[in-house]
Amino acid sequence: MKTLEVRFQDAQIELSHGAGGKATRRLVEGLFVPLLANPILQSLQDAATIELNGAHFALTTDAFVVKPLRFPGGSIGELAVNGTVNDLAVSGARPLGLVSAFVLEAGLATEVLEAEVRAMAEAARRAGVAILGGDTKVVEHGRADGMYIATTGIGLVDMRVRLVPERVRPGDRILLSGPIGDHGIAVLLARGELDLEADVSSDTRPLTPLVEALIETAAPAIRWMRDPTRGGLATALNELARECGLGIVLQEEAIPVRDVVRGACEILGLDPLHIANEGQLVAVIAPEAADAALEALRRVPGVERPALIGEVQPEPARTVVAVTSYGGSRVVDMLVGDPLPRIC
Amino acid sequence: MKTLEVRFQDAQIELSHGAGGKATRRLVEGLFVPLLANPILQSLQDAATIELNGAHFALTTDAFVVKPLRFPGGSIGELAVNGTVNDLAVSGARPLGLVSAFVLEAGLATEVLEAEVRAMAEAARRAGVAILGGDTKVVEHGRADGMYIATTGIGLVDMRVRLVPERVRPGDRILLSGPIGDHGIAVLLARGELDLEADVSSDTRPLTPLVEALIETAAPAIRWMRDPTRGGLATALNELARECGLGIVLQEEAIPVRDVVRGACEILGLDPLHIANEGQLVAVIAPEAADAALEALRRVPGVERPALIGEVQPEPARTVVAVTSYGGSRVVDMLVGDPLPRIC
Repeated sequence: MKTLEVRFQDAQIELSHGAGGKATRRLVEGLFVPLLANPILQSLQDAATIELNGAHFALTTDAFVVKPLRFPGGSIGELAVNGTVNDLAVSGARPLGLVSAFVLEAGLATEVLEAEVRAMAEAARRAGVAILGGDTKVVEHGRADGMYIATTGIGLVDMRVRLVPERVRPGDRILLSGPIGDHGIAVLLARGELDLEADVSSDTRPLTPLVEALIETAAPAIRWMRDPTRGGLATALNELARECGLGIVLQEEAIPVRDVVRGACEILGLDPLHIANEGQLVAVIAPEAADAALEALRRVPGVERPALIGEVQPEPARTVVAVTSYGGSRVVDMLVGDPLPRIC
Repeated sequence: MKTLEVRFQDAQIELSHGAGGKATRRLVEGLFVPLLANPILQSLQDAATIELNGAHFALTTDAFVVKPLRFPGGSIGELAVNGTVNDLAVSGARPLGLVSAFVLEAGLATEVLEAEVRAMAEAARRAGVAILGGDTKVVEHGRADGMYIATTGIGLVDMRVRLVPERVRPGDRILLSGPIGDHGIAVLLARGELDLEADVSSDTRPLTPLVEALIETAAPAIRWMRDPTRGGLATALNELARECGLGIVLQEEAIPVRDVVRGACEILGLDPLHIANEGQLVAVIAPEAADAALEALRRVPGVERPALIGEVQPEPARTVVAVTSYGGSRVVDMLVGDPLPRIC
C-alpha cells in the first residue's frame, strides 16, 4: 500500500458513485482502498485471488439493484447469478458455488420474490453452479425497492491462464465476444420513462462456455479478460490502459453494435461504448493466437458476431482511442457521471 | 432434496420474515430451499462447506441492515465484519478473507460512510482477516436507509472439529460464553423510540479466540456450535432440538443476563432468550469435557460469566424447556413475530 490517506473529497454519495465509471473509481481508490489497505484489494480486479494448498481460488461479490426487477431478456435474479459467475469466469475461474444475501422490502409480493428465486435457480442450473447458502433481511416498506440481492461466488482458477495487466504488450489484439449495449438499453427502455420503444433484450448469460473455449484454444495467449458491465466497454478498456500503461487503439467500425442499440443511443445522446453489457467479454490476446481465439468464440452456441476490434500500442499511453475508416480518431474516455443508474 | 414444492403461503413479505425466528424459517424452508434445491443448502447451517483437494472450506454470507447505523458498543461496519467472522468461527473455520457489497443511499454523507469503512478495517484487523474485495451500488435517496452491507467470508475448516447435529447425544452439556441480550437491547434503545434509558452496549466482537480456545481444549468433544444472533438463544437451541431430534433442558438461573437487560426486557415484554447477541456462542460439549471447555472460555480475555446452562435429554423430543430452581418449567419457543426489526 502506498498510502492510508483518504483522498475522496465529495461531501456526499451520489448516484454516479455507483455507476461504475470515473466517480466509482474515485470513491473506491480514494476511500475504500486506503482504509481497507491490503495488496489483494489494491489490485482492484473483478475477483480476489487466494492461494491455498497450491490451488488458487477466486472470490468475488456484487450487489444487484437493477430497476425494474424484470426487463426484456432477464431479471434481477438472473443477473444476480450470471453477474457473479461472469466475474469468476473472466478471472479464469470455474465457479464452485454461490451464496446470496437478500434485502427485501416489507410488502413485496411473494410471487415477485418466488419468480426471482426461480430465475436464480434456472440461471445457476444453466451455469452449472449451485447456490449453497444465503441470508434474508427485511426492511420497512419504502426502505428498499422491492429487493436487492448480493451474490458472492467462489471459483477455482485454471492454472493454465495467467491474467495480469503486466503481461499485456504492444501488438496484442482486442477480442470482443459480440454486440455491445443490449443490456443497458433494454433496462433503460423497460423503465418506460422515455418516449422510445425498441425491440432489444438484455444479453445476460453465463460467460463460462466462452471462457472455456478461449482457454482450450489459447490459454497462454490470453493476457487479460473482463466482462464490460457498468461503464461499458470504454470503462473496462480505460482501466486496462491505466493498469498496463499502454494505449488501446480501437477500429470503430469493427465494434459490433445492433442498429436498434445504436439508434437508441443516438436519440439519447449516449455512446454505446459506455453502455453496460451482461453477456459479453473483452479479452487481450497475443497476436499469434488472435485468429484462433476468434474462431473458438464463433463455435460457442449463442455467440453472435465476435470480433477483433483493435490492438494494444505503445502510444497514446494510458489512453483508449477509436479510429474510423476515414482516418479520424477520438479519445474514448471512461464513463463520467451516470446516464444509467441502477442498470445491474 | 425431498421436494421441489413451494410451501410458503404468505401473500407478501413482512418484517417478521427477516427476524430470524419462525417466520424466517418458514420462508427459507418453504421457498428458498425447495427452489434452489441442493444438499448443502438443505442443511441450513450458518456456513456452507465445500470440499476441495482434501481441504474443507466454509462459505457464509450475511446482509446487514441494522438501524441506527451506530449504537453503543458498535456500528453497522463492525457488525458487517464480526457477524461474518463469527459465522465462520462457529462452523469451526479460520477466516481466510472477506468481501463486502455495499448498497448506498444517494445523499449519504461521506463522513458517515468513511466512519463505517474505518470500523470495518478496525474490526477486520482485530479479527485477523483481510477485506479482499467489494462492490458498491448506489440507489436513489429514499430507496435505502443510509447503507446496507452484505459481507461474505471464506474460511478453512479445522479438521479436528466435526460439528453436526447427528453427533449430539443425551447427557451432552450446553455451554454459553456469556450474558445474553446485550446487543439487541442496545440497538433497540439506541433508536430513541422508547421512553427508556439504560446503560447497555452491544457485545459485538470476533468469536475466533473463543472458538480457538474450545478447539485447543476439547476439539473432539465439541458436537455443535452457533452464535445466537437474530432470534436469540431460544431460536438457536430450538433449531438444534429440531435437527438432532432430542430435548434441550436449560437451568433458567444458570443463564447469565445482565440486570439492565433483564429489566429492559421486563418493561418491554420481551424474553432475553429471544434477544440477539453479536458476541456470544453456544456450544454442545460431551459431558466429560464440559468443565474443561468452560475453564478454557474463562481464560479468554474479554470473556465474562461463561456458564454451563443445561443439557441434552431424550425428552421432550425436538423441544427446548427451561426449569427453575423451584421446580417449575416452561417451553422455550422460537421467536415468533418480530419484536426487534433490523437488529443486525
